[in-house]
Amino acid sequence: MLRTHHCGALNEKHSNEEVTLSGWVQKVRNKGFIVWVDIRDRYGVTQLVFDEERSPEWVFKKSLELGREDVIQIRGKVIERESKNPKMSSGGIEILVGDLKVLNAAKTPPFTIENETDGGDELRMQYRYLDLRRSPVRENLIFRHKVTMAVRNFLSQADFIDVETPYLIKSTPEGARDFVVPSRMNSGQFYALPQSPQTFKQLLMIAGFDKYFQIVKCFRDEDLRADRQPEFTQIDCEMTFVEQEDILFQFEAMIQHLLKKIKGVELGAFPRMTFTEAIQQYGNDKPDIRFGMAFGELNELAQNKGFNVFDSQELVVGIAVPGGASMSRKEIDAWIDLVKQPQIGATGLVWVKCNEDGSYKSTVDKFFGADDLTQWAEATGARAGDLIFVMAGAAHATRKQLSALRMEIAEQMGLRKADEFAAVWVTDFPLLEWDEDNQRYHAMHHPFTAPKKEDMGLLDSDPVKAKANAYDLVLNGNEIGGGSIRIHDKSLQEKMFNLLGFSEQEAKDQFGFLMDALQFGAPPHGGIALGLDRLVAILGGSEIIRDFIAFPKNNGGRDVMIDAPAALTLEQLEELSLKTLNKKTF
Amino acid sequence: MLRTHHCGALNEKHSNEEVTLSGWVQKVRNKGFIVWVDIRDRYGVTQLVFDEERSPEWVFKKSLELGREDVIQIRGKVIERESKNPKMSSGGIEILVGDLKVLNAAKTPPFTIENETDGGDELRMQYRYLDLRRSPVRENLIFRHKVTMAVRNFLSQADFIDVETPYLIKSTPEGARDFVVPSRMNSGQFYALPQSPQTFKQLLMIAGFDKYFQIVKCFRDEDLRADRQPEFTQIDCEMTFVEQEDILFQFEAMIQHLLKKIKGVELGAFPRMTFTEAIQQYGNDKPDIRFGMAFGELNELAQNKGFNVFDSQELVVGIAVPGGASMSRKEIDAWIDLVKQPQIGATGLVWVKCNEDGSYKSTVDKFFGADDLTQWAEATGARAGDLIFVMAGAAHATRKQLSALRMEIAEQMGLRKADEFAAVWVTDFPLLEWDEDNQRYHAMHHPFTAPKKEDMGLLDSDPVKAKANAYDLVLNGNEIGGGSIRIHDKSLQEKMFNLLGFSEQEAKDQFGFLMDALQFGAPPHGGIALGLDRLVAILGGSEIIRDFIAFPKNNGGRDVMIDAPAALTLEQLEELSLKTLNKKTF
Repeated sequence: MLRTHHCGALNEKHSNEEVTLSGWVQKVRNKGFIVWVDIRDRYGVTQLVFDEERSPEWVFKKSLELGREDVIQIRGKVIERESKNPKMSSGGIEILVGDLKVLNAAKTPPFTIENETDGGDELRMQYRYLDLRRSPVRENLIFRHKVTMAVRNFLSQADFIDVETPYLIKSTPEGARDFVVPSRMNSGQFYALPQSPQTFKQLLMIAGFDKYFQIVKCFRDEDLRADRQPEFTQIDCEMTFVEQEDILFQFEAMIQHLLKKIKGVELGAFPRMTFTEAIQQYGNDKPDIRFGMAFGELNELAQNKGFNVFDSQELVVGIAVPGGASMSRKEIDAWIDLVKQPQIGATGLVWVKCNEDGSYKSTVDKFFGADDLTQWAEATGARAGDLIFVMAGAAHATRKQLSALRMEIAEQMGLRKADEFAAVWVTDFPLLEWDEDNQRYHAMHHPFTAPKKEDMGLLDSDPVKAKANAYDLVLNGNEIGGGSIRIHDKSLQEKMFNLLGFSEQEAKDQFGFLMDALQFGAPPHGGIALGLDRLVAILGGSEIIRDFIAFPKNNGGRDVMIDAPAALTLEQLEELSLKTLNKKTF
Repeated sequence: MLRTHHCGALNEKHSNEEVTLSGWVQKVRNKGFIVWVDIRDRYGVTQLVFDEERSPEWVFKKSLELGREDVIQIRGKVIERESKNPKMSSGGIEILVGDLKVLNAAKTPPFTIENETDGGDELRMQYRYLDLRRSPVRENLIFRHKVTMAVRNFLSQADFIDVETPYLIKSTPEGARDFVVPSRMNSGQFYALPQSPQTFKQLLMIAGFDKYFQIVKCFRDEDLRADRQPEFTQIDCEMTFVEQEDILFQFEAMIQHLLKKIKGVELGAFPRMTFTEAIQQYGNDKPDIRFGMAFGELNELAQNKGFNVFDSQELVVGIAVPGGASMSRKEIDAWIDLVKQPQIGATGLVWVKCNEDGSYKSTVDKFFGADDLTQWAEATGARAGDLIFVMAGAAHATRKQLSALRMEIAEQMGLRKADEFAAVWVTDFPLLEWDEDNQRYHAMHHPFTAPKKEDMGLLDSDPVKAKANAYDLVLNGNEIGGGSIRIHDKSLQEKMFNLLGFSEQEAKDQFGFLMDALQFGAPPHGGIALGLDRLVAILGGSEIIRDFIAFPKNNGGRDVMIDAPAALTLEQLEELSLKTLNKKTF
């Protein structure tokens, strides 16, 4: 080793020891006759002293040439510091340097390698290896490692087997777009990269593996939105001879374990709500339930009281903003402006101040008296000092708009605390959704999800009303996982493919192996997949998944550091029997 | 849960308990008035009893219809068996069934689901999910899981951080062929799937991560040989501020830990040999050292004694076959025939029997007396009762031929024992090899490998003589890992690319990001990558890696179960701006 200790290892106990350290120059302070250099590695920072009198002359001279990020190796004696820094593990000592070797000199980096850097986003991505040197970024990735180890050990101890499923599989044009991989040996044919190992984990259950997990990269060729990656990591799990309740129990225990082990947070039993309840109470199937502000439906209380704006609408619904009664007119108008912006698209807001003295002040005083408003306050849970915002309109759109407002208010009021955690199970999702554009059903979860037993009849009569044995796990307003009980009966799977518009031939071509497998003793089974990137980010107190990925791609799907994707050579294309075409030639 | 216990959980202690089991019908024995059914899951097999008198009539009747691999759920009472089976964990009890539910009936499987099956290779691959139901196959994958968990926990405890590197990277036509992934959003451009995360792990060291590991899929588009997969799994590791010795120490400890933990085998310090020694002593850079039979070079002893066949050749070399003196003439001739076959390609074998009475019998008695042959015996380590095989020819080819013979003899004599383990480090590999066909150098390990310091001058004068700081880990005659100290100096890396025939522009296009990174404080670093598939197979007592992969591809790179690769739809190709061409159109 080019060191006897790392840069966070030494303290007063090592006084007078001769040590060798290697690391990066973090900072140089030159006082003329004495030079202090902070040397850094992953484990910490240690202060080096180069002294005109106490260091060999050539060593002292060489120290004058040291610059930021130079990689050096030093030998020296541990001495106690006069002014100690209790914040650093090695803050009680410094090293009087007797020998110095520059292992590799560094050009001045394009941005400072400090916790707060002066580098812009693009620059830091281009030099990601320098960005990763910054302590907060590195700590994010060490945190990710700890989370994955905890997940692996928890599941392994619960008898789950980690099985690697293949990456070179077959394209199934249903659902999101696949990334594909041309096969050289099978000219004209392609593999696809998995969007998830869904069918393989089902086959493992059919194979009797009983409990499976894998932390696995998945791929989706979608038009990228902010903070969405073309490759992402999933904690993928499946269990046999289970019902929905067993899966919720198992993975509730896992999340509780993680929060306890990683964050020291004890979470009680996770609340449950159905998809319908989530939409009604929060306008959202991934509600952040940390800060109340549940929806109060006001149709019965607010309609037919002469206020036309309400009377004509499908839904009147409000939320209470804690402490909002003290908002100025200007502040309230800012919220009204916000909801009118196209990304929310509401027509306006009615507001009611619940004053501390029990009186009310609202934009609709003309139509509603104190008795009415007291009922509104009850319905929205508003207390003295709060403000009620009310929206009216078509139910679905209005709920969505109010949800956006609710989240934005919580964000701005600091109610979405990074170190506070609340999980919730959302259950009873619809099995199908109707796609107006293409005049067909889509599977809300995926085509392998089992309908609820009691809704089986609806598949023939009114499929869109059928509920699925599907559930989402929501943490702090983010969907961190979703799963379902799967179909294990061949004829039901056929019916499902049929509902989804597959011809018999298409079903056979794409999923023939699964249909075959269902005939040879397929047990009841179900599972869940958790998005690791997001889970880690939320546990780490952030919602920006890119901060928890070592080498992320930008929103255009590019790795700007290595400059990929890139053109191939003509030889490569020829070997693959491929020709790239200008879009316009089609 | 659809069970109270799994099928390996119950024993005499549970007598008289009412239990619910779910599983697969393994076997049905119908005695007319009593039916025994073995029910199986991942954990074990439990015997069920359906009794005309003691079971409800409808349950007994239904039991008569059960067939192999039906998935059933039963409720019943645990009773002690009359004739116990001590080999099974649940062999002391059986379940008197009171309720039976067929969860999913099975068609008769295309082969028997038993430890020894009647299914051929292709059939078992097509129905891999049924093949995986067989206990030995499933146990292989559970074994793999145990190995990977042990590796992860070992490395994690040694401060290695598991960092996920990207799968969608850039093609680098140097070396083996890449699998590529067309980018829809960047028309005409492609990602490549990684052959290894080599440059990324180096960037992580430059980023100060200090110790990195990842168990990661890698991809190589090679013409497949038997038992080679287009996607394979690597235990990928890298360390900073280390020299070769530190890496050997760390990973020797890991393999020792695995063997101890997984197999209960204590391995002492691993022997070391240089590449040159391995070739001289075993004709092979991945020697199986479990059974001696090291080469004895006989030039000095056997040349210039009047035997023309030897005199004219570059190398005369022999091995001692333990106990081989008792071979019949016919047996010896079979070995001679073997080495003459084209896959070995030798011209013949000279043999010497070292008889128990101290006398010799050889094919060259005319030229060599007992004194000569005694010296041969010493050189090859032959003892009384052994047989010496001698080959002569061009050094490189002859060593290769003799190595093939040595391995085949060991195989046939049962000297390559699956439960015996011997590891060896092979070091001091050449840095470069000369490619006669293309008239250029290839990197023997890869272009990032550092030459030995003392050989730096040879890079200018005689590059092919330069040795590298590269090492292989060999277990039981298989290369299970290889690594090197990397180049951390930009100008040396440039020189290396230059030697390998990269133009400046090519080096910049393909590895510009790495060259940049080397300027910003790149520390000395090195690492190793172990082939997980092979490591697991060897630890599991096999050399067939396919048996330790859940869903392997065949030698044509096809997944015959899902039938991939396959053609894309025209729409998919259009979106990707791609056209597939008939090979002949080029």
